[in-house]
Amino acid sequence: MREIVIGGAQLGAIQKSDSRESVVQRMLALLEQARQQGCELVVFPELALTTFFPRWYMEDQAEVDTWFEREMPSAVTQPLFDYSREHAIALSFGYAELTAEGRHFNTSILTDRQGNIVGKYRKVHLPGHVEFDTDRDFQHLEKRYFEPGDLGFPTWSSQDAVMGMCICNDRRWPETYRVMGLQGVELVMLGYNTPSINSQNRSEGEEQRLFHSELVMQAGAYQNATWVVGVAKGGVEDGFPLMGGSVIIDPNGFVVARAKGQGDELITHRCDMDLCNFGKTTIFDFARHRRIEHYGIITSQTGVKRSA
Amino acid sequence: MREIVIGGAQLGAIQKSDSRESVVQRMLALLEQARQQGCELVVFPELALTTFFPRWYMEDQAEVDTWFEREMPSAVTQPLFDYSREHAIALSFGYAELTAEGRHFNTSILTDRQGNIVGKYRKVHLPGHVEFDTDRDFQHLEKRYFEPGDLGFPTWSSQDAVMGMCICNDRRWPETYRVMGLQGVELVMLGYNTPSINSQNRSEGEEQRLFHSELVMQAGAYQNATWVVGVAKGGVEDGFPLMGGSVIIDPNGFVVARAKGQGDELITHRCDMDLCNFGKTTIFDFARHRRIEHYGIITSQTGVKRSA
Repeated sequence: MREIVIGGAQLGAIQKSDSRESVVQRMLALLEQARQQGCELVVFPELALTTFFPRWYMEDQAEVDTWFEREMPSAVTQPLFDYSREHAIALSFGYAELTAEGRHFNTSILTDRQGNIVGKYRKVHLPGHVEFDTDRDFQHLEKRYFEPGDLGFPTWSSQDAVMGMCICNDRRWPETYRVMGLQGVELVMLGYNTPSINSQNRSEGEEQRLFHSELVMQAGAYQNATWVVGVAKGGVEDGFPLMGGSVIIDPNGFVVARAKGQGDELITHRCDMDLCNFGKTTIFDFARHRRIEHYGIITSQTGVKRSA
Repeated sequence: MREIVIGGAQLGAIQKSDSRESVVQRMLALLEQARQQGCELVVFPELALTTFFPRWYMEDQAEVDTWFEREMPSAVTQPLFDYSREHAIALSFGYAELTAEGRHFNTSILTDRQGNIVGKYRKVHLPGHVEFDTDRDFQHLEKRYFEPGDLGFPTWSSQDAVMGMCICNDRRWPETYRVMGLQGVELVMLGYNTPSINSQNRSEGEEQRLFHSELVMQAGAYQNATWVVGVAKGGVEDGFPLMGGSVIIDPNGFVVARAKGQGDELITHRCDMDLCNFGKTTIFDFARHRRIEHYGIITSQTGVKRSA
């Protein structure tokens, strides 16, 4: 057995006016719960330090940049890394990254149990749009504020497991899991901020959106024989509801832990990485069963081309 | 609206000793039910004409070939095509195909509403093994008796919809749906023969296997905004149980019809192909959102390579 006690640290709403310091205090409170429950790795959501600012249309780049982090750790986030080192709890969380070259990414990091950053991921599948869209009930401007990630889907060996990350909308794309699966991933960590209502179809509410979210993560887990930890930012941010539903999913695709509410909440599970072995060596032994000669257009073609 | 009334015609067990003629009679009885319910297209399972013979180890190729069809239509299957033409019901069903060149495939065909074959698919993802495996509770010799399909995953325009097919184990592979999704598929038809117990893990029984089967088809439907019709051969064949669970799944991933038993049983649904439009033009508008520059190893690499 290769067990890791994993915590999914769901965050409730973060209002526009909430300071990063106040959020870090909430994250530390969840880490303290996690420590008491023996967690060795804790996963926080996407853009964990601020409100989900891509719902706000901004034209002033200086204003946009106030939502981004120019360094990590920073003074305000250092207590998280200190806690990690002191209590031997690895961390993963998301934040908006502004690089020294002025590039903007939707990023997440992974630390080891000594608080050292060992992995960085930049969101590849940015949902939403670039310009103000009057047809939507609310805006989703990730394509305006971020550029697509430039790091692909790397994996890292840490805590005797092969780990990978993705972010929010990435989880809906089977390519995300497969690229990591082809590297032998055993644990996929992801955070999300998912509105409870489809901005382009009001009849698609929280129940359907929770179903879709679990469906894609369960399929990704099963089809690649990997653990998946999906962690929400939930609750109502300045009038806009985000769904909760954080889950830990085993390599058979079964949900083994699920958040009950939409606020700050820790879910935990003792995850045995060796549970990945059966699927990876039988039905999903890629080397024996995949037929890449028939997959060509998956990588040669971006959009739909009707052949018939 | 572009509605097609679709029938999923589950077949119960076919014993080794059952003649093809007797099976065709059962298929005609299901077609008659389908006609009474207004079906315009009926989908039958994989290897619909015979027992699931890959569970039997054979060394004599002449014996193996008795399970294969050398022509389609054949004398014994002609009544199906006649029924199709007379009642304007398109058909899809699977059979073991032996070509004039002596090649063996696990094949399915699609007809139009005049009983003309308009599409042929040959199973790409063959599960199982080549040699007798003493570690299994029973054999699954598809890799012995068939070669992998050589036609890829084509799609066809028929009945004012973009249609595709796959077979059984193909449904567990997201690449299957994606290659068709990139051709704009709106209806994926598939049949299966799935043992109720995992031959390599007795604790994995019918409940878990039905869950996996639905999970992968639901994910494939949602992630490509397509209808999926999955049709079982169920029941106990010469002592070996196959699961039922035939389903029709809408482009949101919801099951809209599900077989209750494990015998011959028709499920139907009035399927509006225009329900595919919303997903295909929003969250799964591939042209806007896919990032093929990060998918490379999906087609360049068959098995797992650990990078870390």
